[in-house]
This record gives sequence, C-alpha cells and structure tokens, in this order.
Amino acid sequence: MDIEAFRKAGYQAIDRICDFYYSLEQRQVVAPVQPGYLLEQLPDAPPEEGEDWEVIADDYQKLILPGMTFWQHPSFFAYFPTACTFEGVLGDLYSTSTPNPGFNWTSSPACTELEMAMMDWCARLFGLAEHFLNSSGTGGGVIQTTSSELAIVVTVAARSQYVRRHPGTHLEDLVMYVTSQTHSLGVKASLVLGLQCRTLDVKPEDGYALRGDTLRAALEEDIAQGKRPFFLIGTVGTTSSGAIDCLDEVGEVLKDYPDVWFHVDAAWAGVTLACPEYRGIARLKDINTYATSVGTNLHKWGLVNFDAALLWVKSRKDLTDALDVTPEFLRTKQSEAGAVIDYRNWHLGLGRRFRSLKIWFVLRSYGVKGFQAYIRRCIELNEYFVSLIKTSPTFALVTKPSFALSVFRIVADPVALSLGVSLGSDALNDLNRTFYAHVSARGEILLTQTQLNGTFCVRFAVGAERTRKEHIDKAWTLIQEEARLAVKEWADSIRGGR
Amino acid sequence: MDIEAFRKAGYQAIDRICDFYYSLEQRQVVAPVQPGYLLEQLPDAPPEEGEDWEVIADDYQKLILPGMTFWQHPSFFAYFPTACTFEGVLGDLYSTSTPNPGFNWTSSPACTELEMAMMDWCARLFGLAEHFLNSSGTGGGVIQTTSSELAIVVTVAARSQYVRRHPGTHLEDLVMYVTSQTHSLGVKASLVLGLQCRTLDVKPEDGYALRGDTLRAALEEDIAQGKRPFFLIGTVGTTSSGAIDCLDEVGEVLKDYPDVWFHVDAAWAGVTLACPEYRGIARLKDINTYATSVGTNLHKWGLVNFDAALLWVKSRKDLTDALDVTPEFLRTKQSEAGAVIDYRNWHLGLGRRFRSLKIWFVLRSYGVKGFQAYIRRCIELNEYFVSLIKTSPTFALVTKPSFALSVFRIVADPVALSLGVSLGSDALNDLNRTFYAHVSARGEILLTQTQLNGTFCVRFAVGAERTRKEHIDKAWTLIQEEARLAVKEWADSIRGGR
Repeated sequence: MDIEAFRKAGYQAIDRICDFYYSLEQRQVVAPVQPGYLLEQLPDAPPEEGEDWEVIADDYQKLILPGMTFWQHPSFFAYFPTACTFEGVLGDLYSTSTPNPGFNWTSSPACTELEMAMMDWCARLFGLAEHFLNSSGTGGGVIQTTSSELAIVVTVAARSQYVRRHPGTHLEDLVMYVTSQTHSLGVKASLVLGLQCRTLDVKPEDGYALRGDTLRAALEEDIAQGKRPFFLIGTVGTTSSGAIDCLDEVGEVLKDYPDVWFHVDAAWAGVTLACPEYRGIARLKDINTYATSVGTNLHKWGLVNFDAALLWVKSRKDLTDALDVTPEFLRTKQSEAGAVIDYRNWHLGLGRRFRSLKIWFVLRSYGVKGFQAYIRRCIELNEYFVSLIKTSPTFALVTKPSFALSVFRIVADPVALSLGVSLGSDALNDLNRTFYAHVSARGEILLTQTQLNGTFCVRFAVGAERTRKEHIDKAWTLIQEEARLAVKEWADSIRGGR
Repeated sequence: MDIEAFRKAGYQAIDRICDFYYSLEQRQVVAPVQPGYLLEQLPDAPPEEGEDWEVIADDYQKLILPGMTFWQHPSFFAYFPTACTFEGVLGDLYSTSTPNPGFNWTSSPACTELEMAMMDWCARLFGLAEHFLNSSGTGGGVIQTTSSELAIVVTVAARSQYVRRHPGTHLEDLVMYVTSQTHSLGVKASLVLGLQCRTLDVKPEDGYALRGDTLRAALEEDIAQGKRPFFLIGTVGTTSSGAIDCLDEVGEVLKDYPDVWFHVDAAWAGVTLACPEYRGIARLKDINTYATSVGTNLHKWGLVNFDAALLWVKSRKDLTDALDVTPEFLRTKQSEAGAVIDYRNWHLGLGRRFRSLKIWFVLRSYGVKGFQAYIRRCIELNEYFVSLIKTSPTFALVTKPSFALSVFRIVADPVALSLGVSLGSDALNDLNRTFYAHVSARGEILLTQTQLNGTFCVRFAVGAERTRKEHIDKAWTLIQEEARLAVKEWADSIRGGR
C-alpha cells in the first residue's frame, strides 16, 4: 500500500470508527456468536496473491466487529472498564506510525523522555510522594504492559533484594503474601517465579480488607517454620468487591519486617486519587508512608487505551539491580554516562511501545479537571445504582459499595417468605446463579459473577465513558425482570419437587 | 473530544502520517537531540484545564517527531529492523478503536479466534509441522509481546514440566543453557526466574554456531555435579552475527536428555522460512523434528508493526499447566467446555491487545508472494552490500553474511602496511571503535557495534521496507569516507606518539 492508498484507507478507517461509535448503543454489548463462528469463515492459510484493501476492510466490518464484546458499550458493567477515548486512539495511531522498540534513550529519545515526564505527571495527578517521581533521581515510574507483568517485575525485584541481603537463601524458603481477595496477578507471579505464596484470610466484617493482626500472625508462624517472608501485595480496590486493605496496620507491622517489600496494587481504584476527596478512602497517605512500590492502570478506569499499567518504585536501583542485562550491542554513550533512563532494565522485556504518547494526549485534552469530572461521574452513577438496590426488597448489597463498583445479589428473605420455605446458603447461591445466567443470556447488559467467602454474587462496575443515568435505569429494569423470572423458575422447581 | 472532533483530528493524523512518510528520507535517521531535550520543554504536571486538540497535535510535530530515531528510515541498518507497514498501522488503529483485554473467548470472541487462525496461517507460511498448529488440538500458537517475554514463558513451562516430572527438585539445581551468542533474552529469563544459566562457548571456525559436542560435554559435566539441565535455547540467526546453531546435532544430543526442553529462537530470521529456498539454511526440518517450541517476531523483519512475537509449542498443555490461574470471576461456560482457547493461560499477563488484526491485514494485503518478495529483496540488498565490502581492501567481513545481516570491520593489513607497523588486536579494535564513532556522529545512517569473541565489529542489517539499492550505495560511500578519516586520525596519532 503506497502513501496515497494509505490516505484513502486511513480516512475510511476514521469514518468507520465514527460510524461505529454512532451505532454503538444500538449494538449488543455481548457478541451474539458461538465458539468457532470466525474460524469456520476463514481459510486455513494466507492467500498466495495479495488482496485489495477494500475487500480486507469490508471483511473487518463483516467478520470481526460482529464477533466483539464491546467494553466501551454504555451498558458494559462487567469486570472493570477498559478505557477508550479518541485521544487514546490518536495516541496509538501516531505511535504505531513510527514504531520503535524504545529499549534505551538512543533507540528513540522522545519515547524515553515522554515516559519519564508522563510518569511524573501522573504521580502528581495522584498526589504520590516525591520519592516516587523520576525527578527524584532515586525512585521513579515506568509503564508496564499490564498489572500481571507489573506484579512479576515487582516480585522479582523483591526477591532479588532479599537474596542480596541474605546470600545463600534457598528460593524454596521464600514466601510472598496475598489475600483471598488479591487479584490473580499475585498467584500468577508466584506461579511464574516458582515461589511459595500464602493466601491470607480476610473477613466479611472487615469488608474483606487485610488487617495487621492477620499479617503479623502469618509472618510469625512462617518465620518460626524457617520460611523467609519477602513480599506482600496490598490492594486498594480488589476485583471482587473493591475492598481496600488496612494499609496503615499492615505498614506498621512491616516496620518489624524490613526485608518484606510492600507493593500496593491499585490497578483499578488508583485513579480515584486524582480527586482530593477520595484520597483518604484510597489511602494515599499510607501509600506514601509505607509502600515500596505502587501500581495503577490507566487503561482500566483512567481514560487511556489499553495498555498502560503504571508502576512507581521508591528505589529505581532495586529494579535495575534485579533486571539489568546489558550486552555489548546495547551499550550507548548516553546510558554509560547515566544521563538517561534505560527503561529496558525496568521491565521484563527488551523492546517496548511508545505508550506515553496517549497518556500525554489524554491528560492534556481532559486536563486535571476533566479527569476528575469523569471519575466523579462514574462514582455518582454507581451511587445511583446503589440507591436503586436499596429500595428493592429482592436485592441487597453483599458488601458496601466501593467507588464505582457494587456487589449485590438476590436475598433470601422475601423469596423464602413468599414460599414459606427456609433457604440455605447453597440454595440461595443456586438461585443467584440462575439469575446471573438469565441476565447474561439477554446480552443487553454485561455484568460479572464472583464469590465472596463462598457467597455467589454479582458485580456491577461503572466506567465506560458513554455510560449515563439512562443506562443505569435500563440495566436496573432488566435486572429486576430477570430476577423475577429466575425466582419464578426456581419457585416452580421447588413446588414441582415437592 | 466528540465523534466529529475525532473525525477531524483523525483525518489530520492520517494526513500528517502521509506527510511524514513523504519527508522521511529528508529527515535524519538519528534524532539530533541531547539527553533532556524534551524534559526541559515540558511542564512538571498536567494542565488543570483541558487544552485544544490543535495545540496538542501541533506539539507532537514540534516536540516529539524531532526527538525520534526513525527505525523505518531507508538508511536504518542498525540492530534489527522494526517493521512498519500501512496495513500494520491500520490494524493497530482499528484495534485501539475498540480496546478489550481479550483474556478469554468471552471477553471478545473475534480476538481469540483471529489469533488462533493467524497463528496457523503463519505456521503454514513458514512450513512448520502440523504439531505446532492450533488446529492440531494439542500444540498451538500464541502472540507474545516480545521475544524476551516469550523466552520467560517458555522457560517457566520448561521448569514446570521438569519439576512435575521430578518432584522435590531444588530450583537452585536447575540449569538452563544458552550460548555466548544467544540474545540477552536467555540471560534475562534466568535472571527474572532466579535460575542458573550456563553460557556455552561457540567458535569462529563454526561460524559462532553451537555444536552438539559442546552441549553434550556441558550436560555431562553438570549432571555429574548434581545439576539438573532443563532448558536449552538454540538460535536461528543470532543478533550479533546471524549465526545458526547446529540444531540437528543439538537435537540428536537431546534425545539422550528428554527432560531438556528445546526452544528455538528465530526472532529475526524465522521469517525467511516463508521462502522455500531458505528453509534449508534456516533449518526448518530440524525445527520440525527436534524443537519443543519455536519463536519468531513478525515485528522485526515480518512487516507487522511492533509488537507481534509469535510462539508455537508442541504441547499447549505444557503452557497451561505452568500458567493457568483461573479465579471465579474469570470462569465462563465456553472455557469450562474446552471449546475455545483462553489465551490468558498461554502468557505472563491476563489482559492482551488485539494484535492478530494487523497480521491478518498484512498477510492478506501482501499475500504469500508479496511477503516472500520483501524478504528476498532485503537479502539481495545485503548481498549487494557484501559485494561492495569484498571489493574493498580496507574492509573485510568478520563472519559470513547471514540473510540480510553482515558483520564487517576495518582490517589490519592495508592500514598497517601503509604505516609499516604491525597492528595488535587491541589497536585494531580501537581503530574500529573510532571508525564506528565517526559513522554514528554523522547521523545519516545508523549501524550497530558488536563484539564477536573479543573482536569489535560493526553490524549492517537491511530490513526497512523503503530501503533500496541507492541507500546501500549512499551508506557505502559514507562508510568509506569515515573509514578514511578514522584511519588518518589513528595514523596521525601513531606518528605523533613516536
């Protein structure tokens, strides 16, 4: 494709993306396709001769778009949001127009320097302490691919630090800590690295937050057994319920265990730190006081297109000591002089995309006020959903709402009362599974299931940029309808079974 | 930014990318900036109020483009190429317009199925055995971020397989093998995973290729010392010199060590397998006969924009056994039924971008023939460069050329003869360093330095899509000029020192 053909194809792509967004709300949020739908429409091998772009572009519309789940749909309330803004699209477009692997300053100076600057911009946007800024010269920030890779990087740095301090440590003796509510990134990091991971209990009465006493008891027990605690992940905003660990209690306990690296995973909720009124709840002070590292994804609830997982560390040397491999062909004058950051030694790979560009576009176009307004609107919409739940006898929240996330379920009492039966927890779980299956089958809104200490429940997360009050109302209507049907179905089966 | 503002900004971006490519050859391949050039032009924090898009877009032209090294410049001969095609740009553009984390089939069916199909298309394009195809149901292919992440994934799978087979193995006893010419991805994987890595010697007389005897001797020695060999990386096309390990010899040796996972890293040269005439040199038969896994980057020399690192394994179960972490909130009907691949269990992260789209666009637009023609043209251009080197008394190849890569240096004899002095290897290395520094300082072409068993030399890699014979000629003229200057400078210093 030559330059003028690209101009034509590029205009067409822009127009079709515009068309897509005009039509988004009329589309189904969940792709109405069955496994294999695409595989059976594609040939087994690439064509021998090149095809015309028009045909290829049309096939994207015909074959791909109908098979996508639209995370940007205003009725998407599942998982956590995946951001998409036009500023983010433009950032990715410019970035991919001059691809480069950005592994050191020389390989593309703008990539390194804009990343250094954007990580500091975001640190200031979120109120992080100076020791996390690149401008501190000792700490710093880097963009990772996702929170899972980020967690591996931090676990490696923590392991490496521990082994440097305690030479001869057996890897089998090392133990890291997560809670039953920590994202799978913790267990995955331990699996990837072949290290022990202990899952700490959290209680419903604590809102599923990790308490200091629980941690201290585990540390004491493990050390008594000869284990070597080296790493803990605390969470601000767990995936299942948005729980926020008691970072102050945990941080105080860890004062007695200075070899334990304390990472705070704020992948989803970290963006709330942009709003001064949420800094208390999101524990900014504790992060700044106790955390060795902290991570937040702009590609979830932060308006920047996937991927952009931000990691800050108090000591950049802990990353480079763990990850620096510099062969001859990567040595450069600028790096040897220490004048610039070589980001390849701050992550798992070597090459990396130019991701800071979309962050720059988004933050400048929205400004701090625009970013705050978006976060506040999502939280207000969730508060509105919570108010609807609270008026209903059929539903109840399972735990208190967290920012833009609510976890709810059909509750026992009204249903059981109407039937004159007493509902055990298994039966109630089954009823909620049926309800969730009904909602999912409609395909008009998307929610996610989860379990909280054995209780099956349903998550409702607000975050798509186009979601407004009318979409919450629509979702609520659908939820009520499907609950009525599920209860009726279940009641019929009970009566039939008698 | 609303939809119509995006249309305007999108058209502008497309036009500016067209302008950029019209102007590319007139730009300098290396950014003429000093460390800090951008940092000092940016404010410390994001603006409070949003800014106009026009201002932001203009700043990209003013601040970013002048600070980039252009890997797509026709005079870029450094490292390995980083692909950029307009089809790749369009793939990334459509992909980022509907971002989703693609971690399982449900999260976006098209992403999973197109990736399954494209990995099979590429396997067939490269002539890989059926056991590497997704359609085999047992093996399969997956897109990783870069070869370094890919190497970590494979090392984890190999470690996990070994430990399953030999429960109670101490991680400290495990040892993996690379050669002194293996890409840093091997050492980085061992560093990340905290595992021992032994570097095997390769010899100039073997063209820096790993031989079977070297491997066998190391395995025997290590096993005698109680170590547990579990993983070997063989390379088709090393970074320094494009060396190709003797995969047949190595494969035969490993028949006696069935616990050793044999990964073939063909990150750069794997794309030559698209051309039947290179399948012998690139050892396709050995890959298909002996390899447990094989990786090739389309984002290097494969016309697909960064990133797209392809990994195939003979046994997908070895990946999922090592990497599967499935919490409740990620369980889906389709996955439990085993009808679809959940790619999250095939890589380090959870979320992943929709990267197969650009592969689909490139392979359809180029067709097999177009892809082959591009590979052949690059190799022919390198052969032309080699012919120029061979006519010169000043230069010599350090090792035989490999596909589109040549490694050369100023040679001793003519220079020394003219001065009547005998040149030691250190002095010759110094002379070549001076020469390389001179070429780099010009900023009109970009090459890379390397070392081969203590010999400082210069790499010349062809691969930018716009490189033609005239650019080789221009580079050759510049190389000769700078060599003359470097020799003169060095000779003057010798004379002055007498």
